[in-house]
Amino acid sequence: MKTLADGTVASPTGFVAGAAICGLKESGNLDLAIVASDRDCTAAGVFTQNQVVAAPVVLSRETLAADNGRIRGVVVNAGNANACTGEPGVLAAREMQRSAADALGCAPAQVLVLSTGVIGKQLDVEKVSPGIATASADASTRGGAAAARAIMTTDTHPKMLAVQVELPGGTVTLGGMAKGAGMIHPDMATLLGVLTTDAAVPASELEVLLATAVDSSFNLISVDGDTSTNDTVLLLANGASGVKGAEPDAVAVFGRALTAVCVQLAQMIVRDGEGATKFVELVVTGGRVEAEARAIARTIASSPLVKTAFAGGDPNWGRILAAAGRAGVLLDQNRLALWVSTGTADSPNVQLVARGQPLGYLESDAARVFSQPEFQVHLDLGLGDGEATAWTCDLTHEYVSINADYRT
Amino acid sequence: MKTLADGTVASPTGFVAGAAICGLKESGNLDLAIVASDRDCTAAGVFTQNQVVAAPVVLSRETLAADNGRIRGVVVNAGNANACTGEPGVLAAREMQRSAADALGCAPAQVLVLSTGVIGKQLDVEKVSPGIATASADASTRGGAAAARAIMTTDTHPKMLAVQVELPGGTVTLGGMAKGAGMIHPDMATLLGVLTTDAAVPASELEVLLATAVDSSFNLISVDGDTSTNDTVLLLANGASGVKGAEPDAVAVFGRALTAVCVQLAQMIVRDGEGATKFVELVVTGGRVEAEARAIARTIASSPLVKTAFAGGDPNWGRILAAAGRAGVLLDQNRLALWVSTGTADSPNVQLVARGQPLGYLESDAARVFSQPEFQVHLDLGLGDGEATAWTCDLTHEYVSINADYRT
Repeated sequence: MKTLADGTVASPTGFVAGAAICGLKESGNLDLAIVASDRDCTAAGVFTQNQVVAAPVVLSRETLAADNGRIRGVVVNAGNANACTGEPGVLAAREMQRSAADALGCAPAQVLVLSTGVIGKQLDVEKVSPGIATASADASTRGGAAAARAIMTTDTHPKMLAVQVELPGGTVTLGGMAKGAGMIHPDMATLLGVLTTDAAVPASELEVLLATAVDSSFNLISVDGDTSTNDTVLLLANGASGVKGAEPDAVAVFGRALTAVCVQLAQMIVRDGEGATKFVELVVTGGRVEAEARAIARTIASSPLVKTAFAGGDPNWGRILAAAGRAGVLLDQNRLALWVSTGTADSPNVQLVARGQPLGYLESDAARVFSQPEFQVHLDLGLGDGEATAWTCDLTHEYVSINADYRT
Repeated sequence: MKTLADGTVASPTGFVAGAAICGLKESGNLDLAIVASDRDCTAAGVFTQNQVVAAPVVLSRETLAADNGRIRGVVVNAGNANACTGEPGVLAAREMQRSAADALGCAPAQVLVLSTGVIGKQLDVEKVSPGIATASADASTRGGAAAARAIMTTDTHPKMLAVQVELPGGTVTLGGMAKGAGMIHPDMATLLGVLTTDAAVPASELEVLLATAVDSSFNLISVDGDTSTNDTVLLLANGASGVKGAEPDAVAVFGRALTAVCVQLAQMIVRDGEGATKFVELVVTGGRVEAEARAIARTIASSPLVKTAFAGGDPNWGRILAAAGRAGVLLDQNRLALWVSTGTADSPNVQLVARGQPLGYLESDAARVFSQPEFQVHLDLGLGDGEATAWTCDLTHEYVSINADYRT
């Protein structure tokens, strides 16, 4: 697998992207993105588990369910989530879909719609429609970076990449962009991702591949434990490479590449978490089954007490064990072991806990690891072979400032 | 029910309390408390649901299971949680129990032990034992306030009260003290509570009454969503009033008084939440069943995004609906309604949402409520008669400062 220099969602053959300013963001920055294919795509989506869902989530679910073999593009606005907006919100989402279809020269049912931003405010379609026309007129193979910038909310920089992978039938390209800086949590919190590929993959296989990739990437990151009304990851496959991605001899390689793209986008999101100054990898091993290791990794990843200790550079590992203990998983506390490391030569793996008890480590060795901008925490449960890795950031004053600020 | 002026855990007849300095707190403040009865008590306890539990939790559970009709006292230290300390920790807890039994002139099996403070550090019993002797020599009916002060950790003030209630057989007194300022969450996070009464209540009834009271009080508050290894609420009943609390004609009144004491202590804890500047009551009505209303109230109460919006005085109600949507409860978002109020005459009930959509309220009216130090949020689910009330505080810079500070 090769990462492309300046790769974007428009890197796979046959895709273009564009962006525009509709005036939905106070800042006056780009706030509308369009991603389009020159031919029909199969498509798959993973959507928020929240019971309160935004109008575009309802519409995109419907659109995928009705016909996911003829998708031509995705339109995304930032600055307004079009959530908790009732029937007027559904009409606005349909209007976005219709405008994008007009601009792309396809039917409304061939366009997926995403929104992100403030909840509970009606979306002004009078502003959005001209932006859609501009963005699609402007769309090109070089437009992916602007599109990634347009979907940002409190993100400090755009998140995008593309990779190429060799399958038995030839080379295929996978591209992606994502946004999300707060409300990021397992179960896809205010996270939008749009992925593209020129591989040919039937819709049913695409769905399984995307669900698997999301489960090992976007569902294992946490910024604050909150989940949103709008989270969506979409994958469009247009087959323009002429290479089949889901054939028995190709699917494992294609699936790994898709997961790798999702993991990289997910890690970009955590690194850019609201107010984050540290990136921490949480490895949980020794679970009776993988699901239990996952549950524990996710609980640690979203514990405010663990994350404030990370912010302070404090090796207060008791909070890590306490978080593990409330994950709803049966544990034997006398089997717990804990290590921390930065993975660099001058900072070896420091074991803090064995059999549930503190070891005689040097506090300064532990503090050296916790003071780094990136480190790994490894908790072994001592019960079996189940393991999982999650990624998180620290909880800082800046997180509070960003979220306590008045919306307007 | 009458609240006593200066009531404490030592207000019920036959109880005394005392405190001492063992040197477990860096500050050199009081760090050991003892509560004792002049006669045998029935007792009940509610303990943390965390799978990682402190040594004193293990020991007190054992002690209650073996013989809960002959309890004579409770010994509590602050400054060290005696958690994640393995076998040496269990020996230290047993040593605390033995020292307290010696001081009180009873058997070790008649003493309950609690600890709170830093996790993962061995407890120095050489320091604790002399403190136990001092505290019990010093114990008196006037010692309850010092005891409440001794069990504090990051609390800024002690929490205590006592009430008197008329039962058919005469007057009984209920007293209590509690601590806990962070790690406070449903499921009893770093929360210690010791309750006393001079009513006569058989152990089995006491257990049911305490579980019910805790469920409607300590289990409905949240500071940060974390739960701890040490949470415990104990209730001792010595019968010194000669009045039976669990007789058919008395139990409802006694139970209501016990719940009221627990609710008041729980609210004191939220008001003193780490860094808290606001106290918010969350009322959820219209659930299909009470359990679903509870689940939603608890999820809103622990949402970092909701709590940072409270900190900023921002009526960003979309976050409240989004939190409700991820509580694991089936909702119809088109039936949601939301009101906020301060309960004062000049700030009426403001309805923000009806049928899941924003109403045309004045932003300034909503902002006026959210800027108050205390207010109520009322979410109606529109599905049935289930209701629940939870209490929470805001999430501020100060919370991060307190918890990011290095332990030493």
